[in-house]
Amino acid sequence: MDKTHVVWHAHNVSREEREALNHHAGCVVWFTGLSGCGKSTVANVVDRELHKLGARSFLLDGDNVRHSLNPSPAMLASYGETFAKRFGLGFAPEDRQENIRRIGAVAELFVSAGMITLTAFVSPYRADRNLVRSLVTSRGRADDFIEVFVDAPLEVCEARDPKGLYKKARAGEIPHFTGISDPYEAPESPELHLQSAEKSPEVLAAEVLAYLKKIGKINAIS
Amino acid sequence: MDKTHVVWHAHNVSREEREALNHHAGCVVWFTGLSGCGKSTVANVVDRELHKLGARSFLLDGDNVRHSLNPSPAMLASYGETFAKRFGLGFAPEDRQENIRRIGAVAELFVSAGMITLTAFVSPYRADRNLVRSLVTSRGRADDFIEVFVDAPLEVCEARDPKGLYKKARAGEIPHFTGISDPYEAPESPELHLQSAEKSPEVLAAEVLAYLKKIGKINAIS
Repeated sequence: MDKTHVVWHAHNVSREEREALNHHAGCVVWFTGLSGCGKSTVANVVDRELHKLGARSFLLDGDNVRHSLNPSPAMLASYGETFAKRFGLGFAPEDRQENIRRIGAVAELFVSAGMITLTAFVSPYRADRNLVRSLVTSRGRADDFIEVFVDAPLEVCEARDPKGLYKKARAGEIPHFTGISDPYEAPESPELHLQSAEKSPEVLAAEVLAYLKKIGKINAIS
Repeated sequence: MDKTHVVWHAHNVSREEREALNHHAGCVVWFTGLSGCGKSTVANVVDRELHKLGARSFLLDGDNVRHSLNPSPAMLASYGETFAKRFGLGFAPEDRQENIRRIGAVAELFVSAGMITLTAFVSPYRADRNLVRSLVTSRGRADDFIEVFVDAPLEVCEARDPKGLYKKARAGEIPHFTGISDPYEAPESPELHLQSAEKSPEVLAAEVLAYLKKIGKINAIS
């Protein structure tokens, strides 16, 4: 039985085989920027366009990751105080890092599955993004982490305020709000720097797709 | 800009659209059983066979989840003692539950991506498996969680001992080892009950594929 194990493990379906089935390569496209900068909007358009091309893509964002990868408030409450404190994530830099690291780990699993993984989180700290970049590329390939800075001035983001979060943050109802009471550390050399105050989500999404094509991730399908 | 947000969110690529692209439905195939029962081996054969059929499948197991979804020992050490204690998972029932819950959450994300997600973990506690079943099916569909009990007597698993873990557990080197110093709670009504002491991994994998076909998950490709 030992031998069977070894033999089968040696024949695991590889990332390369999954990519061959998909006719494109996997990677992480990591959108970062202030709340309201348009990360989710642009990522959604990219996801839709990739889907139209027949690519296997997936978007990780607050909507599907919050309260699933990390426990929901109800789940935490069921654990009792001691464990709830351990398993819940707060606002300390370490907590934020662990949150981003976990999202990066999930993105990495999707890349192993041969998929183009889009992530849309504020991810304000340079060190946290660099940690994910290093984890993803060291276990994968050098071009597997594509950092996309969705750049719009704070005033523009605050004027948009799609979820009313800036209003609450200004009223002191949300602590540690990036841009208001917590810093945003802009990427120093992102793969892509999108000007989201000046261009439409469709135009910005096209820039992302052009980049993916340029580096050979989707050239067989586009 | 608010309106753009709303419109695009309404047009997110749906699970159904991803499944249509894949020509099969998504689901979680949750393998459970003692260490050495053949979970990973059978899951790997299923993964390979699904891949041959052109299905988008992915296997979550100790090899790719340990030290990624949960932090590696080096990563934990870098956090310092307080945070390492919070972010690391131990052997308490709550820790085991949170580990299985997290894996279930990742499996659920893969299902949202239209994939057939195979998981191979001992997952010894009935309540933990039922928790994942309830999370996956309540947010997805009733047939999204397929529990596969890979059943072999302890004596058989211990005689195989592919990773030498039973030997270490008997020597007291591994605490809380399922079957030796911790209980295994067999599924009461699993979707599939595989007799792995009597049949080959290939035969067992065929039983899984037949089940997936029977419930309509892969009938368009097989």
